[in-house]
Amino acid sequence: MRIVVDAMGTDNRPVPDVAGAVLAAEESTDTIILVGDEQRIKTELAQFSPQQRTNLEVVHADEEILMVDKPALVGKSKPGSSMHVGLKLVETGEADAFVSGGNTGAIYSIALLHSLGRIPGVKRPALCAIFPILQQWCIFLDVGANADAKPEWLLQFSTMGNIYARHVLGLNKPRVGLLSNGEEQGKGNELVRETDMRLRELNIPNLNYIGNVEPSNILAGGVEVIVSDGFTGNIMVKTFEATGRYLTRIIRDEIRASVFTSIGGGLARPAFERVRQRTDTAEVGGAPLLGVNGVVIVSHGSADAHTIKNAVQQARNAINGDLIAAVQVGIQQLTNETAES
Amino acid sequence: MRIVVDAMGTDNRPVPDVAGAVLAAEESTDTIILVGDEQRIKTELAQFSPQQRTNLEVVHADEEILMVDKPALVGKSKPGSSMHVGLKLVETGEADAFVSGGNTGAIYSIALLHSLGRIPGVKRPALCAIFPILQQWCIFLDVGANADAKPEWLLQFSTMGNIYARHVLGLNKPRVGLLSNGEEQGKGNELVRETDMRLRELNIPNLNYIGNVEPSNILAGGVEVIVSDGFTGNIMVKTFEATGRYLTRIIRDEIRASVFTSIGGGLARPAFERVRQRTDTAEVGGAPLLGVNGVVIVSHGSADAHTIKNAVQQARNAINGDLIAAVQVGIQQLTNETAES
Repeated sequence: MRIVVDAMGTDNRPVPDVAGAVLAAEESTDTIILVGDEQRIKTELAQFSPQQRTNLEVVHADEEILMVDKPALVGKSKPGSSMHVGLKLVETGEADAFVSGGNTGAIYSIALLHSLGRIPGVKRPALCAIFPILQQWCIFLDVGANADAKPEWLLQFSTMGNIYARHVLGLNKPRVGLLSNGEEQGKGNELVRETDMRLRELNIPNLNYIGNVEPSNILAGGVEVIVSDGFTGNIMVKTFEATGRYLTRIIRDEIRASVFTSIGGGLARPAFERVRQRTDTAEVGGAPLLGVNGVVIVSHGSADAHTIKNAVQQARNAINGDLIAAVQVGIQQLTNETAES
Repeated sequence: MRIVVDAMGTDNRPVPDVAGAVLAAEESTDTIILVGDEQRIKTELAQFSPQQRTNLEVVHADEEILMVDKPALVGKSKPGSSMHVGLKLVETGEADAFVSGGNTGAIYSIALLHSLGRIPGVKRPALCAIFPILQQWCIFLDVGANADAKPEWLLQFSTMGNIYARHVLGLNKPRVGLLSNGEEQGKGNELVRETDMRLRELNIPNLNYIGNVEPSNILAGGVEVIVSDGFTGNIMVKTFEATGRYLTRIIRDEIRASVFTSIGGGLARPAFERVRQRTDTAEVGGAPLLGVNGVVIVSHGSADAHTIKNAVQQARNAINGDLIAAVQVGIQQLTNETAES
């Protein structure tokens, strides 16, 4: 197995990207290909022992894409970027997956328009988020790629999310729900109502559709695959994250406000640390771009080496689960179903 | 001033509804009119002293609307409900405002279609939420009435929310933002992009439009009036609430997991209590239905007497701030602006 790690991805590039690749290479006999500024990558690698550097290759790329770069422009303006070079390796079959902690919009745009393209039949690839709710992984899509969506696209997101949950996250019979403003059938905006109707009518193999889900259902652990347009999905994920930070901030302020509560807060610190771990997405490492014709795992700009290593593991699971072939079959079946109905 | 309190509103009706009305009546010389089952109201009132019962009137209503009732049906199926009777008192000028902790959809539907109707020029009334962020009140609309909205409606929501913030919440130059999946101009779905463009073009008097806002901007206290379609707004508010409950639950579980952290949690309890207060919407009591031709304040089904009392105060502020006349003028100005542009 050969997995590309974009060395020019995270905010602190190339430090966590290279260190994460080293950790990932140590874990198995797979080859990790670091793509980016060769000189800067080699300087980083020099800190590790020759033994740690086995299974690692370096491929040079002239340019790097910044977080501030406009995704719509980088495809053409920076053709020598680490993303172009790395994704091209997957496109040509020289590598099996691409992992990056860089500019998500840029990865999406380059993968879709300048290298891998779509899996046949896929209307629109989706950005996913994977996060732990209580003790269970959930996959949420679309969380940002398609602000205005059509029912047909959401049907495909349901199928692709379901396949990822089963083949890569290893969930058995994951529940698939449609994000809505109420659980009852008939709730939702036009898009949700139409999609819900079609998901009920269609008989998609191995898809356990449970209907509309509200934020409270999701956070009570009632669903594993959450389907939405990219606008609402993005706002829901950002609200979840921002509320976590907001509450943490006011809890900290209030604990510090008196001596007694400060002492209490000190004693309770291990509990807060476990809460942080339980709400942390670093353990999963990254989430896929679903629908592009190759395994692409997007990590966070703030990722550390541990997170990047886990993102590589996510890529391995996707390759082992034969993700692309499974999505291809799933989308074909869905297309046939839809044509018949 | 005469304010109607729906005695058959909250989940625990008529107990908190009546007790809240008594508290509200004690605070001022205003008359509070309790509408609902006369017998049950009088039984509740009997617990209070004759002195506490001054400034209180009771108007009988035969029927009550339940939380499970379908809003679309109750307008016709329960014409004798406390909501019909109470709203009619406002419509005929026998009262100045209506306060209820009941079924929000039913209040909306009855107010709009069976009694008060819309303020002239208003396309669609909006459901609002009012909540404290850091030390500041924010008003958020629409949070549920209009799942599919048009730019023209969001322009009106911006105007009405701005007027409420200034005239009722007493905010000076509130910042008005459009909920979006990114702050930059050009982010958003079609609805948001079109509305943003028009808010920039139009010159709406006294409206301090700051552009798109993300959940993190909102929770950092960067905006006081948040405008959205009712689908996205509903999901954002529900995500905020559900995340609060979710984090509280896992913090409690983790604190209880060991003796040390339990002791720490016990000492820190006053801090958690202050956090609860700071995130509690009970202090504001309720939020308006903006755009209907009368002051209507919707409280929560879970409201206690204190919350109902505060909802009555919200109604008083709306009457004192001459809300309906101000919205009428604002909508007229907006209509003229729009016609010219």
